[in-house]
Amino acid sequence: VRVPIALDAMGGDRAPEDIVAGAVLAARDGQVELQLVGDLLAVEVALASHEGASGLPLRIEPAPDVIGMDEAPLAALRRKPQASIAVACELLASGRVQAVVSAGHTGATLIAAHTALGRLTGVERPALAVLIPTATGSAVLVDAGANVDCRPEQLVQFGLMGAAYARVALGRDRPAVGLLSNGEEAGKGTDVLREAHDRLSRTSLDFRGNVDAHAIFSGAVDVVVCDGFTGNVVLKVGEALAAMFAARLRADLGASGLDPESPAVTEAFRRFKQRADDESRGAAPLLGVNGLVLVAHGRSSPAAIRSALNLAATLVQGRFVEAITAALGA
Amino acid sequence: VRVPIALDAMGGDRAPEDIVAGAVLAARDGQVELQLVGDLLAVEVALASHEGASGLPLRIEPAPDVIGMDEAPLAALRRKPQASIAVACELLASGRVQAVVSAGHTGATLIAAHTALGRLTGVERPALAVLIPTATGSAVLVDAGANVDCRPEQLVQFGLMGAAYARVALGRDRPAVGLLSNGEEAGKGTDVLREAHDRLSRTSLDFRGNVDAHAIFSGAVDVVVCDGFTGNVVLKVGEALAAMFAARLRADLGASGLDPESPAVTEAFRRFKQRADDESRGAAPLLGVNGLVLVAHGRSSPAAIRSALNLAATLVQGRFVEAITAALGA
Repeated sequence: VRVPIALDAMGGDRAPEDIVAGAVLAARDGQVELQLVGDLLAVEVALASHEGASGLPLRIEPAPDVIGMDEAPLAALRRKPQASIAVACELLASGRVQAVVSAGHTGATLIAAHTALGRLTGVERPALAVLIPTATGSAVLVDAGANVDCRPEQLVQFGLMGAAYARVALGRDRPAVGLLSNGEEAGKGTDVLREAHDRLSRTSLDFRGNVDAHAIFSGAVDVVVCDGFTGNVVLKVGEALAAMFAARLRADLGASGLDPESPAVTEAFRRFKQRADDESRGAAPLLGVNGLVLVAHGRSSPAAIRSALNLAATLVQGRFVEAITAALGA
Repeated sequence: VRVPIALDAMGGDRAPEDIVAGAVLAARDGQVELQLVGDLLAVEVALASHEGASGLPLRIEPAPDVIGMDEAPLAALRRKPQASIAVACELLASGRVQAVVSAGHTGATLIAAHTALGRLTGVERPALAVLIPTATGSAVLVDAGANVDCRPEQLVQFGLMGAAYARVALGRDRPAVGLLSNGEEAGKGTDVLREAHDRLSRTSLDFRGNVDAHAIFSGAVDVVVCDGFTGNVVLKVGEALAAMFAARLRADLGASGLDPESPAVTEAFRRFKQRADDESRGAAPLLGVNGLVLVAHGRSSPAAIRSALNLAATLVQGRFVEAITAALGA
């Protein structure tokens, strides 16, 4: 049975073309049926370029407006109640779909989701959870950027919700949770982190204490808890360095006598990029809102949108929102 | 004329052997004369393995104790006033050398330097400034880990001192300074960062406002200002990803039909590693103490120690401490 999902067709650097292309790929995979939310004509035109799309479970839900990436999200959403992300979140609130995916303005998605769906009981502010590559597989990093300043209680909630996500998305029965600090000793970090460390130790989580930034990628823990400022820095440093290191290594291969444009070298760098994309699973869920909303990268390729949609279907089938709710209640 | 420098021969994962080996390399380069501070016998043994070392400007300054990497630095320094790092800082305080280099416990180096030398007028707490690679060359990141919690005034001082360091070490006349935040807009970040943004705008610096973590490595600014918690995360993420990405790309080259152990591939990865080492210049100065103290990585190779010593000589010749003092007074 296909999972009904609303896809914000207008959000993303190459929307609606690449978003619609990703929708077509996912629809062909067979796990999802999609509401493409956006400008009727623009989405129709984008769909028309895909042969056989009319036979796929894709419908267009008209939404005349879109929130631009450089708009202040709160004001923009007030001005444009018919923006694609707002309409998509309303479809979820009304029960017509079971998840929303958007590669648009992250702040706008957060606010629209929060407004349409509300928070789970006890959650102060929703957090973004991304899957990051590690030496042994994948781990959950939470918060990846939704909350700049965090109090200790919020970090504890991120740990509980992140562990629930790791159970559903990564299949870990009892995920190991670490608190990102500037060293492993319990006394490391800011006052907020020391207090969070104490509180996390008293939960039922398999809490492994502080981890330093080296350990984020070592596979030592399944869930890395941090505030959204730090999470944003970790992710952006990772993206920037992946690009810089790949360019440098390609140049170094050339300087060492290999043809950096040869098919084998090109294929190796394609694999490198592909693996990173696969590991991210294309999108990050908002943890703590009363519904499943996933944020995809603004630069998402059609393949990334496809994997975001399939991840959304997997999470719906894994009863993601129920798992988060149960984790918070425990 | 050779610059007299005290080298903590006992600090570092492979001390004293690799530290002494680096000292021999730097002494042969001709810019430095060295006091090797440490256990007399251990340093003599390490020196004896280098042919012709007796003709080089290297002397041993005995210091019976050493601070271990897992010791609490304040208590350890009190218990061991004759620890190598303490003796080295005293040599600088007494004017017998013009700089100190240590690959030992960073916290202990900070405290020993602070104790022996004191702070420059107006400095609240010293900061660590590292050179990081960018797409266009190098930039200064400050604070790289000395101060976990920072007030806005401290971040302003980091900007002033970091710019002075960029002038002396990178030869930038008027370095561009950015404040690391979670986005480029002026309103981004924590309350502390917003206040620091305002204050930095009112200095005589070429302040470019907020930069996000993507921009750290783009070359957009010469100096990136952040608190020591964030700086620590940036550096450790960079180190961890450099190792992980290199291992993955090597595997991907193998999977694409190239021999990952071939001389050309091995040479390319050696170049990649070498460039990162060259760009770091081997060590990070403590900004704000009344004297030049450089912290090298605990895993420093002999080549890294050599470059740290040569960087120290360059900074002494560039009148580094006077430049920092002047920047703070302006």
